[in-house]
Amino acid sequence: MIKVVFLGFGNVNQQLCRSLQKSDHVDVLQIYNRNSQVFSSEWKGFDFTTQLSEIKSADIYIVGITDDAIASFSETIPFRDRLVVHTSGSVSLKALSNHNKRGVFYPLQTFTKTQSVNFTNIPICIEAENASDLKLLHQLGSLLSENVTEVSSEAREKVHLAAVFVNNFVNHLYHISEELLTEHELDFKLLQPLIAETARKIKTLSPAEAQTGPAKRNDHKTIENHLHLLEGSPYIELYKMLTISIQEQFK
Amino acid sequence: MIKVVFLGFGNVNQQLCRSLQKSDHVDVLQIYNRNSQVFSSEWKGFDFTTQLSEIKSADIYIVGITDDAIASFSETIPFRDRLVVHTSGSVSLKALSNHNKRGVFYPLQTFTKTQSVNFTNIPICIEAENASDLKLLHQLGSLLSENVTEVSSEAREKVHLAAVFVNNFVNHLYHISEELLTEHELDFKLLQPLIAETARKIKTLSPAEAQTGPAKRNDHKTIENHLHLLEGSPYIELYKMLTISIQEQFK
Repeated sequence: MIKVVFLGFGNVNQQLCRSLQKSDHVDVLQIYNRNSQVFSSEWKGFDFTTQLSEIKSADIYIVGITDDAIASFSETIPFRDRLVVHTSGSVSLKALSNHNKRGVFYPLQTFTKTQSVNFTNIPICIEAENASDLKLLHQLGSLLSENVTEVSSEAREKVHLAAVFVNNFVNHLYHISEELLTEHELDFKLLQPLIAETARKIKTLSPAEAQTGPAKRNDHKTIENHLHLLEGSPYIELYKMLTISIQEQFK
Repeated sequence: MIKVVFLGFGNVNQQLCRSLQKSDHVDVLQIYNRNSQVFSSEWKGFDFTTQLSEIKSADIYIVGITDDAIASFSETIPFRDRLVVHTSGSVSLKALSNHNKRGVFYPLQTFTKTQSVNFTNIPICIEAENASDLKLLHQLGSLLSENVTEVSSEAREKVHLAAVFVNNFVNHLYHISEELLTEHELDFKLLQPLIAETARKIKTLSPAEAQTGPAKRNDHKTIENHLHLLEGSPYIELYKMLTISIQEQFK
């Protein structure tokens, strides 16, 4: 039985708690949060505290707070030499105080507050300073997901950067296309099947193999027409830069 | 029974032929292509010709050739006053020769040569110059898809531009993220669940609601770190422009 305490109870820790509590091999001992506002009726079966001094003894402490606060918060933890992990993609393991044994438990996914997550297919990137801690994090991760991978802080930064491209930036392109359609009173739902197929395609093709479009085939006439349509739009420079970037990749 | 002849037999027309032949309400009379190379054993039950002069009399002629060739090809069609449509997102109806009645039958999807397409959920954008032709195209489209929409040439240009953003440009961002991971010998498959979830999310949330990340929350520290990681990369300017573009949208 792995004894877990959550330190901070934001979206990621709530999702982890929801899933881990279902396992027979995990005991969610306690939830700490600096205020009790996050504590809805869903969690009433759990031991909850707002006092750092009351935190119980556990095998793994999972810190789930905003990136910027991780370092300073970890310094305020009153106990020593236990395994404390954070769940952030972009924060180094070494940001955690060295008063405790340090680790990372980063689920590589975007979470929506209102929707429960099934972790089975979500990669969990783990990191620790010694083999026994790494083993324990691997055990915990394997209770949630079929894809637990050791990733160093240095590599995890790159994973997080890549995630910004395929999640935040891709979503922004969805946003732009929605604006382009709305101008003509066309429904964004028109693009849904194309969006789904674009994401599905790269499960079987590499992105290079899946690339199509006027930039890839150097179709100047269509590109010129698109630039004409975008005159006065805030997105014309983005169109140009993405087109050139595709052309560079395939020249 | 709607009698159809395909003029040109590229990827889109092959997919349309594969699906339309299954309908009891369509008779695929003939396939014309200027050479016979496209004609694999899959199509051996069909009447095939390489001679324009041998084209049969049909209700709808579907031109499926490269965008640039549509106008000049349509001038060479030897018959008059029949309904000739093209399947392109970016070519005006008026590009077709006015020797025949003109229309557009544009399935809004990206097609992969090796995979059969189910058109049921794929929007089909139709356009014609008179009501009876429009009705016929609507009938044909409805045999394939639950989503047949009349879209003018002017609006269709914008749809096609928006499609470039959510398909070609999104795929390019996948490509970039793959490169970022490969540098660290990390598998692109790590990002698959995030890519799928990003596309799924906007079925229930608007892109504005679904937007997250350092640009949206003005997290300068993470942005600075990402720019540091991208030093010397061809993608640093793209990261900056996309970040600023998101910030502009949410300020």
